[in-house]
Amino acid sequence: MRNILIIGAGRSATSLIKYLLDKSETEELFITIGDLNVQNAQKFTSDHPNGRGILLDVFNDKQRKEAVENSDLVISMLPARYHIEVARDCIEFGKHLVTASYISDEMQLLDPMAKAKGLVFMNEIGLDPGIDHMSAMQIIDRIKEQGGKMLLFESFTGGLVAPESDTNLWNYKFTWNPRNVVLAGQGGAAEFIQEGKYKYIPYNRLFRRTEFIEVEDYGKFEVYANRNSLKYQSVYGLKDVLTLYRGTIRRVGYSKAWNMFVQLGLTDDTYTLPDSETLTYREFVNCFLPYSPTDSIELKLRHNLKIDQDDLMWEKILDLDILSNKKTIGIKDATPAQALQKILEDSWTLSPEDKDMIVMYHKFGYELDGKKHQIDSKMVAIGDDQTYTAMAKTVGLPVAMAALKILNEEITTPGVQLPINKEVYEPILKELENFDINFKETEVEYLGYNPLTVVG
Amino acid sequence: MRNILIIGAGRSATSLIKYLLDKSETEELFITIGDLNVQNAQKFTSDHPNGRGILLDVFNDKQRKEAVENSDLVISMLPARYHIEVARDCIEFGKHLVTASYISDEMQLLDPMAKAKGLVFMNEIGLDPGIDHMSAMQIIDRIKEQGGKMLLFESFTGGLVAPESDTNLWNYKFTWNPRNVVLAGQGGAAEFIQEGKYKYIPYNRLFRRTEFIEVEDYGKFEVYANRNSLKYQSVYGLKDVLTLYRGTIRRVGYSKAWNMFVQLGLTDDTYTLPDSETLTYREFVNCFLPYSPTDSIELKLRHNLKIDQDDLMWEKILDLDILSNKKTIGIKDATPAQALQKILEDSWTLSPEDKDMIVMYHKFGYELDGKKHQIDSKMVAIGDDQTYTAMAKTVGLPVAMAALKILNEEITTPGVQLPINKEVYEPILKELENFDINFKETEVEYLGYNPLTVVG
Repeated sequence: MRNILIIGAGRSATSLIKYLLDKSETEELFITIGDLNVQNAQKFTSDHPNGRGILLDVFNDKQRKEAVENSDLVISMLPARYHIEVARDCIEFGKHLVTASYISDEMQLLDPMAKAKGLVFMNEIGLDPGIDHMSAMQIIDRIKEQGGKMLLFESFTGGLVAPESDTNLWNYKFTWNPRNVVLAGQGGAAEFIQEGKYKYIPYNRLFRRTEFIEVEDYGKFEVYANRNSLKYQSVYGLKDVLTLYRGTIRRVGYSKAWNMFVQLGLTDDTYTLPDSETLTYREFVNCFLPYSPTDSIELKLRHNLKIDQDDLMWEKILDLDILSNKKTIGIKDATPAQALQKILEDSWTLSPEDKDMIVMYHKFGYELDGKKHQIDSKMVAIGDDQTYTAMAKTVGLPVAMAALKILNEEITTPGVQLPINKEVYEPILKELENFDINFKETEVEYLGYNPLTVVG
Repeated sequence: MRNILIIGAGRSATSLIKYLLDKSETEELFITIGDLNVQNAQKFTSDHPNGRGILLDVFNDKQRKEAVENSDLVISMLPARYHIEVARDCIEFGKHLVTASYISDEMQLLDPMAKAKGLVFMNEIGLDPGIDHMSAMQIIDRIKEQGGKMLLFESFTGGLVAPESDTNLWNYKFTWNPRNVVLAGQGGAAEFIQEGKYKYIPYNRLFRRTEFIEVEDYGKFEVYANRNSLKYQSVYGLKDVLTLYRGTIRRVGYSKAWNMFVQLGLTDDTYTLPDSETLTYREFVNCFLPYSPTDSIELKLRHNLKIDQDDLMWEKILDLDILSNKKTIGIKDATPAQALQKILEDSWTLSPEDKDMIVMYHKFGYELDGKKHQIDSKMVAIGDDQTYTAMAKTVGLPVAMAALKILNEEITTPGVQLPINKEVYEPILKELENFDINFKETEVEYLGYNPLTVVG
């Protein structure tokens, strides 16, 4: 039996654990799930003979080291900032490591030690980062092998609600960490390159400078820019590309409506509101409007955001019951962002029967034999239910597959790495197709980055 | 002779030094000016027999300690972050200290030691902070002594260009550190209280939520909110006040125009622009506009900022030559804020014959014997020339006066303090009148905070 230790039994671990347990007989695996909540860890193994849940406090050195020492490979599904102690133990005890998180500077420092011990430390192998890297590099490598020269790379990903569960005016529900959704785009201007020009969008404009994409059978979506597209120049080997742009996908109209909250200041996470616990939703909104006792909060809000009488924006506001004078924030020392999250969770939490959806869209522009070409590649994944969500599948399955392939010595390159090499992406993308996670490629006319398809 | 050491001979030190040299005969003072630039330090003493300039590198412990030891009182005009070493020397050698800067946490920690040695560490005794504290506390204390209860305190200060030198469409020139002007309002939402309600304005709204004030003989001004008004609740003893608001004064229309830069993202100081050195002004602006080769930057800018054909905003943009394709930023690794500052300095630098102006405006609302009252108190100071500017006078003279009064034992309370006690503010405000720095009080109807003077 090969022992796999999975640390952190969150909602995103379901498909990961199921995959490994399903293979545990034929592949001779024993799966240990360590979590601070031992019931939670045990629930995930569902009394499977080749699985068990244990209590694991990642801050308890003895517990953690013992669990790592007793395994052959460790999967850390903890929040990114907690990986490093686990990674150091893996070095100490000579164990492989798999995570779905961005490589931190601290993690990168372990690279020579991992290499010296012949250990694979595979990171960024979930959805985004993960499937985005693999599906992009597969096509970029193919274009380069054919002798093509990359001109344009645009890449968009979104975690959304499936069409059959899309029941509110925002066309959005929380399918992932709500806090990340509320704070999206903060911390600096979005930076990217369009036709050789560096472009910057500040936070207060981010949700108004969206672009549209279309996915067959699913209709129109919009995209707002991610903060840092430029680092993919070196990661993907796109030094001379003219256009490099990454973004987040939402249903059309979401960003313009979300921008109302940005403009009011409701997404600020840098200070706390006095008396936030007893503040009504209505009082919360009024904190961000001018004092004027002779006017209603409704009119002040309409005036402040320039919402006309017949503007659907207003319906979106009412849809959230954000002007309720009965409901209270109920959180002590809440930041505006935390208060807003609370209000949104009332309306945007998935119902038990709801399904989620992942959409990924890449554009590859290139020159080959003097001609310009473009390939668009699209993937849509729909969740089975609230346990095996599209998010859990797309994050967890590549992690599980990588773990097994490392144990089976199909992935062998040692060191701290991400899945941009053929050795990794080819077999994993292939296997993902068995789980209905597949990309559809179409050739389209290359127009470069140009918002107008017809230049007049 | 009593020895006064002034560290830092910047532009704001002129009036301070002149005051002390003018009094040096009768008061038996000898003034030593220490600066990294010894020519600069010597220039300020103008060969006065009771003054000398010396080389003083504040990071050179030996130089600094020697200079402090040889003095009876030290005035630090350095940027606030450099005061602390000087302050520690003052403790070591038992010297009084005067600064015009906000009390830092590190400075506050020296309070018990200063008290134990009987030393006065007077801070925040320039203009803002300084004259604002003194002129506000004089009236607040008077109202309280009469048995009044404070209801409202609003306080506004602005460093502007004098009417006779007001020659551009922005009605503004740099009379102080341009960097602070470009970064004004950043770092968090403005927080204040209006009629008992906490109110917040995010940065992206700050310059659109201005209010108007009027000053006799000088006309209308506008005010945008300062970041932290709430700390004055404890500093001024205004715990139960209904309205507490501090702001910065500009000429009407400045803020709405400035907001264009905020919205575009030109004031961002958190990242650097590649090739900023050779970037033209026009290319710099285009970094913040969508890529669209078929449209002019002019039209993209008008569209992005929603500037109509006949909007004066457009003239303000042209006035700065910010769309020049000849002028270059010329700074390596400039942030957008640094690039913008460079562009503005072309247009907003004072000419040799220009004069500056300081405007300060306080409102005090209170209840006395069951009736509500309001006092408005206003001060306007105009610079003599480019040496004895209004800024240098209003910052430097209170510092100089405090220093002399400490030496003469008219100000004796020891410890780290700011000028909110009668012992300090009464004599200094009185003496400032001799230098044309005086407040005019008027009684007005108390309306509370209400943007509508007539409630209809």
